[in-house]
Amino acid sequence: MIKIGILGATGYTALELIKILLRHPEAEIVAVTSRQADQPHVGDTHHQLAGRLDLRLENCEPEELADRVDCVFSCLPHAASASFIKPLADLGKRVIDFSADYRLRDCETYVAWYGGTHPDPSRVGRVPYGLPEWFREEIKKANLIANPGCYPTSAILALAPLLKAGVVAAEDLIIDSKSGVSGAGRTPKLGTLFPECNESFSAYGVGQHRHSPEIQQLLGLASGTHPTLIFTPHLVPMDRGILTTAYARLVGKPSTSELLDLLRETYRAEPFVQVVSHLPATKDTSHTNFCHVTARVVGDRAITISVIDNLIKGASGAAVQNFNLLYGFPETMALL
Amino acid sequence: MIKIGILGATGYTALELIKILLRHPEAEIVAVTSRQADQPHVGDTHHQLAGRLDLRLENCEPEELADRVDCVFSCLPHAASASFIKPLADLGKRVIDFSADYRLRDCETYVAWYGGTHPDPSRVGRVPYGLPEWFREEIKKANLIANPGCYPTSAILALAPLLKAGVVAAEDLIIDSKSGVSGAGRTPKLGTLFPECNESFSAYGVGQHRHSPEIQQLLGLASGTHPTLIFTPHLVPMDRGILTTAYARLVGKPSTSELLDLLRETYRAEPFVQVVSHLPATKDTSHTNFCHVTARVVGDRAITISVIDNLIKGASGAAVQNFNLLYGFPETMALL
Amino acid sequence: MIKIGILGATGYTALELIKILLRHPEAEIVAVTSRQADQPHVGDTHHQLAGRLDLRLENCEPEELADRVDCVFSCLPHAASASFIKPLADLGKRVIDFSADYRLRDCETYVAWYGGTHPDPSRVGRVPYGLPEWFREEIKKANLIANPGCYPTSAILALAPLLKAGVVAAEDLIIDSKSGVSGAGRTPKLGTLFPECNESFSAYGVGQHRHSPEIQQLLGLASGTHPTLIFTPHLVPMDRGILTTAYARLVGKPSTSELLDLLRETYRAEPFVQVVSHLPATKDTSHTNFCHVTARVVGDRAITISVIDNLIKGASGAAVQNFNLLYGFPETMALL
Amino acid sequence: MIKIGILGATGYTALELIKILLRHPEAEIVAVTSRQADQPHVGDTHHQLAGRLDLRLENCEPEELADRVDCVFSCLPHAASASFIKPLADLGKRVIDFSADYRLRDCETYVAWYGGTHPDPSRVGRVPYGLPEWFREEIKKANLIANPGCYPTSAILALAPLLKAGVVAAEDLIIDSKSGVSGAGRTPKLGTLFPECNESFSAYGVGQHRHSPEIQQLLGLASGTHPTLIFTPHLVPMDRGILTTAYARLVGKPSTSELLDLLRETYRAEPFVQVVSHLPATKDTSHTNFCHVTARVVGDRAITISVIDNLIKGASGAAVQNFNLLYGFPETMALL
Repeated sequence: MIKIGILGATGYTALELIKILLRHPEAEIVAVTSRQADQPHVGDTHHQLAGRLDLRLENCEPEELADRVDCVFSCLPHAASASFIKPLADLGKRVIDFSADYRLRDCETYVAWYGGTHPDPSRVGRVPYGLPEWFREEIKKANLIANPGCYPTSAILALAPLLKAGVVAAEDLIIDSKSGVSGAGRTPKLGTLFPECNESFSAYGVGQHRHSPEIQQLLGLASGTHPTLIFTPHLVPMDRGILTTAYARLVGKPSTSELLDLLRETYRAEPFVQVVSHLPATKDTSHTNFCHVTARVVGDRAITISVIDNLIKGASGAAVQNFNLLYGFPETMALL
Repeated sequence: MIKIGILGATGYTALELIKILLRHPEAEIVAVTSRQADQPHVGDTHHQLAGRLDLRLENCEPEELADRVDCVFSCLPHAASASFIKPLADLGKRVIDFSADYRLRDCETYVAWYGGTHPDPSRVGRVPYGLPEWFREEIKKANLIANPGCYPTSAILALAPLLKAGVVAAEDLIIDSKSGVSGAGRTPKLGTLFPECNESFSAYGVGQHRHSPEIQQLLGLASGTHPTLIFTPHLVPMDRGILTTAYARLVGKPSTSELLDLLRETYRAEPFVQVVSHLPATKDTSHTNFCHVTARVVGDRAITISVIDNLIKGASGAAVQNFNLLYGFPETMALL
Repeated sequence: MIKIGILGATGYTALELIKILLRHPEAEIVAVTSRQADQPHVGDTHHQLAGRLDLRLENCEPEELADRVDCVFSCLPHAASASFIKPLADLGKRVIDFSADYRLRDCETYVAWYGGTHPDPSRVGRVPYGLPEWFREEIKKANLIANPGCYPTSAILALAPLLKAGVVAAEDLIIDSKSGVSGAGRTPKLGTLFPECNESFSAYGVGQHRHSPEIQQLLGLASGTHPTLIFTPHLVPMDRGILTTAYARLVGKPSTSELLDLLRETYRAEPFVQVVSHLPATKDTSHTNFCHVTARVVGDRAITISVIDNLIKGASGAAVQNFNLLYGFPETMALL
Repeated sequence: MIKIGILGATGYTALELIKILLRHPEAEIVAVTSRQADQPHVGDTHHQLAGRLDLRLENCEPEELADRVDCVFSCLPHAASASFIKPLADLGKRVIDFSADYRLRDCETYVAWYGGTHPDPSRVGRVPYGLPEWFREEIKKANLIANPGCYPTSAILALAPLLKAGVVAAEDLIIDSKSGVSGAGRTPKLGTLFPECNESFSAYGVGQHRHSPEIQQLLGLASGTHPTLIFTPHLVPMDRGILTTAYARLVGKPSTSELLDLLRETYRAEPFVQVVSHLPATKDTSHTNFCHVTARVVGDRAITISVIDNLIKGASGAAVQNFNLLYGFPETMALL
């Protein structure tokens, strides 16, 4: 039984993670932390957990935690996450980091998009990106995993096969993504107040979203190309789900069927990627670790449409998938 | 043209009020206030008003405002509202108060439910309750109006006719109300964050909501009875609308038809109350100043169901209806 | 491995049932039926199942099915369900029936509320009502289970302990329930079209809902009383969840704490009922088989508030809980 | 007072049209039609109209209607609309057609996208497209107006100024649109059932939506270019609103400010187009006839974002704006 600690356990990704791990036969949650010191019971913070997990939130130091856990999932925000993780990793603990801290491949890009300085620069560029469909072998051998961003997951799973096969150009990619509101986190803000975003749809962070460089770097790494892209996220009045519509210029004259076949071939053995011929909806993957993806040829563009649950395949489900790989458990354990 | 000032203009009721008044041929909004001093343009605070109202939010004193306005609508919270209104009322300005400050008929009840002390005790009990269907003549003669609460409006319009006619008992009234989230205001709070209340339904303030004594006192006043009641509000994952299901013990054996006839007779001449024979939905009155109401006999109870838009008939529309009465304009002006 | 057949597999309860059974280590779905003859793949009917269940919907006869399955879950509508079930039960197959056909204790009440004649009258009144918290021992010994209605589950779990203990009166119970739209089924109808019920809240079936006699009979059976009640269902603009607010006249002067203690004592050993001191929201139990329940004393009434997921604890989760009891599997298998 | 007939009055656009016209001081609705013959009261079909419009739906012939009305708004579907309109137009009645029948400039394109044959081919290409911001002078002189599609309105208002000024290329336009569910009409269908599309987001009609040729032809006409484009519509779980994100390749190196200035200059005198510097949300224009639009330079693309209410500026509000132009009333009458 692996002893698990969860850092930053008051938010939505931590809640989903806990619910998945409660079903995991090889994991036992032994500690949940929060940087607030008031020691509430986790069931008071997350009413969904009433009677299901008898732990109090702790505000503890990494060293203190290290004695009690085998593996840590960090749901802390960027910078805070690497600061807490570094000593744990130095002590040889296994860590799955939900933050962006180890995703980008170089500190310069990190600092340009996230500001400050990187708390653990020596590990940057050497931590596998936890998208098993593209980086499984590296994940299996690692102790620290950079769990992917939700938008990048949806974009990379759809576009990497086409780019890698050379049937679309790496330039002028247009990635138009739409996400449910849980992606904005659990801190009260005017913009995510119910009467503000309910019955409304909006774009945000146009040209400035931090997932742009992540998509660019990791999509490039997965496909062996150097993509240039525009990424535009939008807010959908729903709890969860991401749909990404991507437009890529065709190279040659592939048909819709050929694109679908290419996707099917790529993901034939993948337990969590379903290539579908219909147009998928986010609800098709809600509350699951699946990604559904399809493609169409329209004019001189390939259009890919991919859907995931932003909190599961886009965060906590992927994290458990990585956890299973780290420990050699069946990859789908607790995830079906 | 009546010069209008709006106090506390950053919230949802103020926004709806502004939109209604922009359509009013006899009203001109000349000032909007906020207790925040940063002077934002009202169109930056309320994007819906972009290009429609060229005013900046001011943090000003009552006396300062008095010189520039004929009539004030106060959307300030309780206590703050009466504090600001008192000097204006002393100067003879006409005021319509959205807060609870002048609704209850005695200071003791006010203090018991709202705490503190009342900022303007001498006016308490002498200010008409702005529900024209039951207090029209007093409203016409007043300078200061206590604009009704949203829940009380929905409950009183449904129950007062039955109580007044003596076909239901005044004891053991059960009032089960359901409201959209805009009723909770525009201040960011965890409980009204989109992912918390979307796809969820909950009760709140059970046995403790401040509209309980208001319903009790004003329903009694309207119907000439002394009701005892339980009021339970619930939060519905929608922007706006209130539906109140009320259960009243029958006196005698009236039929559903007789109850409907009684309601129709009561509201025959009312421009904004529609007695319907079907079961109304909140959407039937959304974005309007109408109340739809029906009744059924079930067992030994009368069940009334009434719907309003909490921001319009439950707040800003009622306020303009009162404004029209105060100034002798057609009661429906700007409200159809 | 128990071989499972699912009747009427195109709707929402069947979909949830399939998703739960796919996680069940002792169950294998071998047949899914639909009275439409076009043989679509179940993954085309339910996109959520893409790649997860490789079966086609069959329009087959009971006898045909009997050879291939050990246990049947029927999601057919009333009357159609008992007609199909009767021959299967005669052959000794185990059956869990989601319809109302075997819930009521006598044919007269059934006919009065459902019309027609009962297709299998000799079994009526002898089939256990599948609410394990109140009828576990009978369930364990049965071959055929009447899976409870969603509203009755929420009402009975909250009220039965208070009635049984005699702290509330059996007369004049008022049960005000609110349900998400999935409860209305998957057949396209104007009333459940998105733009009709989104951003709207309404009552329906006032005084006429078929769950009234079910609550009355089974609540009485569970608590050993003869309740009289009014049941009013409402439609909430959300997918799933039921919240029931029930008002019961107090006998004696119990406090809120005493009511909560009584509930806690009643459900101390229950794996799926959580007695909470806060006011629960439907989201607290969404996508789970839990019921959260609380109580308050207000005036001379006890108010209970209970929440469940209408598709899980109100239908498919309860069905699997009953399945586990029937076969002697751990009661929580596949349900946590 | 202009006597108005409304054809096909059972749907959502007709309802919005009626609500606007009830506020119009120069219009009187004298007839509402439906191809169903059962003569329901319009208030029974649209509960929002209870007590506000005392008319029954009629199933009548054009000639019959012609005697009683001055002006007709047709909310009939394509083909049915032109069939009904033709005799009315032949008799010299003024007509505003919500269908696509007269929007496209040639019958070949019409037949290719809508099938069948055109019922009134001689008028095709000679009817003004009712987007006043680009075709005001022709509208003023016409008797028959082709009221624009909702998606085309959002796309053309955003892109036409940039194309006309030559700051973006006419090739490889990517128009990614998102609409509320009311755009799919009021006929019950599985795809727009609440539990299907609530909490879900999907694309539809990829590469095949009938608004593609309309955007292409009319955007070209408005801007004096020959655009090639990909148009992808998506369904948002909300009642109303369209947001269109369009990506156009820059010509030269304009800045974001220059794009905004160009938009502001274009729409300086327009009463219903607001150029905003923030990123607009659909809610900013809900229940209004406004369009809010902004632009950004990202990489080598201009991104425009425009929002409208699909039922108002995208249908019924635009129709009344056209009506006002036809009759020489102030263009904003009943629309502010």
